[in-house]
Amino acid sequence: MTAAAGRPAGFLPVPLAQASRLLNHGPTVLVTSAAGDQRNVMAAAWSMPVEFSPPRIAVVIDKQTHTRRLVEASGQFAVCVPGAALVDLTWAVGQCSGREVDKFARHGLVAVRGPVLGLPLLEAGCAAWLECRRLPEPHAEDAYDTCFGEVVAAAADPRIFADGRWDFRPDNADLQTVHHLGGGRFVRAGGTLQARPPADA
Amino acid sequence: MTAAAGRPAGFLPVPLAQASRLLNHGPTVLVTSAAGDQRNVMAAAWSMPVEFSPPRIAVVIDKQTHTRRLVEASGQFAVCVPGAALVDLTWAVGQCSGREVDKFARHGLVAVRGPVLGLPLLEAGCAAWLECRRLPEPHAEDAYDTCFGEVVAAAADPRIFADGRWDFRPDNADLQTVHHLGGGRFVRAGGTLQARPPADA
Repeated sequence: MTAAAGRPAGFLPVPLAQASRLLNHGPTVLVTSAAGDQRNVMAAAWSMPVEFSPPRIAVVIDKQTHTRRLVEASGQFAVCVPGAALVDLTWAVGQCSGREVDKFARHGLVAVRGPVLGLPLLEAGCAAWLECRRLPEPHAEDAYDTCFGEVVAAAADPRIFADGRWDFRPDNADLQTVHHLGGGRFVRAGGTLQARPPADA
Repeated sequence: MTAAAGRPAGFLPVPLAQASRLLNHGPTVLVTSAAGDQRNVMAAAWSMPVEFSPPRIAVVIDKQTHTRRLVEASGQFAVCVPGAALVDLTWAVGQCSGREVDKFARHGLVAVRGPVLGLPLLEAGCAAWLECRRLPEPHAEDAYDTCFGEVVAAAADPRIFADGRWDFRPDNADLQTVHHLGGGRFVRAGGTLQARPPADA
């Protein structure tokens, strides 16, 4: 772990108009949820933005999961974007159910309270989070486990996302997003490529 | 462009049970479509698997696009996964409408005919493709431009995806997937990280 990932994160708010950029490149995320006296965190490789403004996202949450029950009970969920230093944790929280164990306690996770919905959010080791109100879409939820949400607050670690832009550099490697290939293998989002416009543009 | 990306691709079929792995890590894709005598290709950063078996995916296709019209007319679409060597093309096909121009002709793209649905597919410079039958989901399509599809055929370039696994190596950098950050900036899926199981697992 680099010094950057080791010191406490100082997250800054991300304007809602820029929130979709946090998920635009397809990172694997941690979905957090709470209802009554229960809370949970699960890993989700399958999420995407669906609208820029208002910022809306979709995430696949299997109907067998404890998270799904909490999301349906509370009408809300959050998405946290883990950095590469959390790759073991990201894999681990996908391997057990929150029905049986409080995964925050088990893994020593310190949750920050979300500013709008009060959801448990992860900052240390994460690059960003988004608090979302569920947008009920009964058929898609039932047929494809696809849950929609509207982002009502977002924030990011300015060492890797600032002024509406991701900045992947050698000195923030531990905060760089991870993308699950399957079976606990991830790729890290690495070198940036700038597309050139077509010659006749 | 490396020699690897320069020679003609020799795609191999990917078993349907492994098809979701082609999109699991959130690459930006090219959506191809055809209806009547028209065909089109557009870029889409927003896609994800939604089910392993049968393999199903979701992709956001704005209702204003020519692609959306072709998908609704034909009931099918394909998703091609461009490698890093196609980053300029990926950006370019997102900057103009297929209503005004045949983007295949404009960019000199050679389309391969899909084996099940006959869709125009891109192989040269791409890592993989998936042919999909649209699964009508009227409310999600209307409210969130989210279109669902069932994968009926898939294939990949074995230099980067073989035996159900992505393999990102220095010698296949031009085939490595790209992930759009916004404004023509992409990150390349780079170094692989293997998560370690928790100590008490």
